[in-house]
Amino acid sequence: MPTINPERLLGDLRTLRSFGATGPGVVRLALSPIDIDARRWLAGRMSDAGLDAQIDGVGNVFGRSRHAGPALLIGSHTDTQPTGGWLDGTLGVIYGLEIARALAESDDTRHLAVDVASWIDEEGTFSGFLGSRSFVGGEHEASVDEAIRCARNRDGQLLHDALQAAGLAGRPRARLEHGRHVAYFEPHIEQGGRLEASGHAIGVVTTIVGMRELRVRFSGQRNHAGTTPMSIRRDAGAALVAFIARMDDAFRALADADTVWTVGRIDLEPGSLSVVPGQADLHLQFRDGNAERLRAMEAALAALVREFDARGPVGVALATLDEAMQPVTMDAALQKHVARAAEAVTPGRWVHMPSGAAHDAQILAAHLPACMMFVPSIGGISHDFTENTADEHIVLGCQVAAAAAASILQEATGGRMVR
Amino acid sequence: MPTINPERLLGDLRTLRSFGATGPGVVRLALSPIDIDARRWLAGRMSDAGLDAQIDGVGNVFGRSRHAGPALLIGSHTDTQPTGGWLDGTLGVIYGLEIARALAESDDTRHLAVDVASWIDEEGTFSGFLGSRSFVGGEHEASVDEAIRCARNRDGQLLHDALQAAGLAGRPRARLEHGRHVAYFEPHIEQGGRLEASGHAIGVVTTIVGMRELRVRFSGQRNHAGTTPMSIRRDAGAALVAFIARMDDAFRALADADTVWTVGRIDLEPGSLSVVPGQADLHLQFRDGNAERLRAMEAALAALVREFDARGPVGVALATLDEAMQPVTMDAALQKHVARAAEAVTPGRWVHMPSGAAHDAQILAAHLPACMMFVPSIGGISHDFTENTADEHIVLGCQVAAAAAASILQEATGGRMVR
Repeated sequence: MPTINPERLLGDLRTLRSFGATGPGVVRLALSPIDIDARRWLAGRMSDAGLDAQIDGVGNVFGRSRHAGPALLIGSHTDTQPTGGWLDGTLGVIYGLEIARALAESDDTRHLAVDVASWIDEEGTFSGFLGSRSFVGGEHEASVDEAIRCARNRDGQLLHDALQAAGLAGRPRARLEHGRHVAYFEPHIEQGGRLEASGHAIGVVTTIVGMRELRVRFSGQRNHAGTTPMSIRRDAGAALVAFIARMDDAFRALADADTVWTVGRIDLEPGSLSVVPGQADLHLQFRDGNAERLRAMEAALAALVREFDARGPVGVALATLDEAMQPVTMDAALQKHVARAAEAVTPGRWVHMPSGAAHDAQILAAHLPACMMFVPSIGGISHDFTENTADEHIVLGCQVAAAAAASILQEATGGRMVR
Repeated sequence: MPTINPERLLGDLRTLRSFGATGPGVVRLALSPIDIDARRWLAGRMSDAGLDAQIDGVGNVFGRSRHAGPALLIGSHTDTQPTGGWLDGTLGVIYGLEIARALAESDDTRHLAVDVASWIDEEGTFSGFLGSRSFVGGEHEASVDEAIRCARNRDGQLLHDALQAAGLAGRPRARLEHGRHVAYFEPHIEQGGRLEASGHAIGVVTTIVGMRELRVRFSGQRNHAGTTPMSIRRDAGAALVAFIARMDDAFRALADADTVWTVGRIDLEPGSLSVVPGQADLHLQFRDGNAERLRAMEAALAALVREFDARGPVGVALATLDEAMQPVTMDAALQKHVARAAEAVTPGRWVHMPSGAAHDAQILAAHLPACMMFVPSIGGISHDFTENTADEHIVLGCQVAAAAAASILQEATGGRMVR
């Protein structure tokens, strides 16, 4: 079994944290100057590890093993949310780097090929999952081209201009090489509180949940809040509140323990205390690992919208806010490799679980067998300055990931299994 | 009975509409240049009517009869909301002007004293009810002084600077003269849809309802909407929705047909689809003509806040947004004068009703016997460009108001009653 170097691992994570460090958190938006600095540093660390490293034409950092395939591709992302944590995707990228080094340092495994990627803009500063979409191409080709031409960040900067400013525009884009990769593996922090609550150190991901984002709009009659009797009001806000109660009932009847739905935003128009709201919007997101359940929830929602709209006195209409995201099942054979590695390193302290958050792995999974592995998030917190994972868990997770990586590659190259 | 001149009345209303006309509506914010122009025009029309007219040190237009008292004070306001209608308070001011003229033109009534006021800033561009508060002084003295020093409009302009720019700063303020006024009378558009719905032409106001404005804040735990299972969430928005349902039940149990409550605004923090809201605010207003019912509603609300807060998992706290406004009962004897005048002019087409909106009359009522009279609002709409009242109702309302005014004054001066 390869052995990782805890000090080197933690040292690299801490160095990367210094790029954009803000209090305990990190602000390192994709293609910002500090992100570019971090990518240059990362490419240097990949080169030090013996990988052929490049920053590609969209900002991906790609470290290619000099060994012939079949290679294991380990990746995640080093860009952050506007107020991000220090680990998030960074953990998986540095795990990949450390695993490439650890495998190269062991006689058993030095012949194995590990490629390491930091995909640009997973967080959607310009265009979510840009780097992994650019890498796999195919169904994403047109939308990536369009993003490079037209996508802007919150400040109105064009992606194209950001790439130009970073000296990356016109560089070739790293592309999936036919036949090279046996699998894609993405270690990540959990971003939830299940591992911590259940006392497990490792989560073996079964599915990345699918997602729907919808808006329900209620159209009533704006009126004076003093002079309009309750009996004749067409209060859009009151209809919205009544709707949510019924929607909760309908979703609860369809849900299992992993189903989640969230009303993240409510807008009442005009939003004045003295005015009965004439329009009200609820912004809804729901996620589940089961595509059929997602469809059933959407159907139940649509039925409820029709019922409320038909009954009046407030009109109700449903609109889609974003493309539906289908659930993505992780490769079963890969899950077994990760589970066996976890059991070997930390017996009984691992568990199968879905990923409630979206990840680059769902993009790669359409093109390569893919799997993910989680380490615990303290307090379940992520996308926040206070996001953290115990050093012990960071180190243990990397050891499990290294063992899993060796196992996957040894099986693919006909070598013996790592147990 | 005095006879009003419909053409003169409608002509003055239409001329005043031209100051700030915007489509069918009017934008004439208190002390804006166009409002000052309108005040100068109004003062001129008062002088033409034989009143001693002045624009005072806060912008009130006050037209004082040259007759000795006891005088009837008729007033309302000619400033508008940011997107206001053409009638609103303007109607009552021009009614006052026309009534002063009509009484002066009839042998029976030419000796009677009618003073006419357009109170500044009823709508609160700088400080709500500024003009009527300045006029009565007393408990409002300190807050009016403070407003003149410190109040600003939305553009950040100081009231003091606006008065200076209008050449009004330092002028004496019109003040309630001890013993002069027998009563205050404020005709107004209804601003609701009851008169129209019931086919009545005149509303005799019984009470100006009291009002509470409160905020209920829910404090939960902000979390990732994908990775946080429903079972462990502390969703502030979900708690808010559940609270509103219970609050509606509690208020419905206490309400009569005139009680109104409105959730005009809901804020979920951070307001993102992917984040379980960590904080949620509901902004609530309720109004009723009965002070005891208002207290009971506030107590029910507070009890519900305590119940939800104690039960968790989301903390709940109540905050007052504005000073409680007590209901103000209109003078019973004055109501009889108005009711008799209405019955004489338009038999069977008048009704007693509360005022759901606030008016300068509630300020005056603490110092003078006061009453109000409503004419129908088409579609119940006000504070909107489309606000309107049929010409027939405008004219009829002024005739009723003139008859009521003569009746009030003749009784006060020992003359015969107008029937």
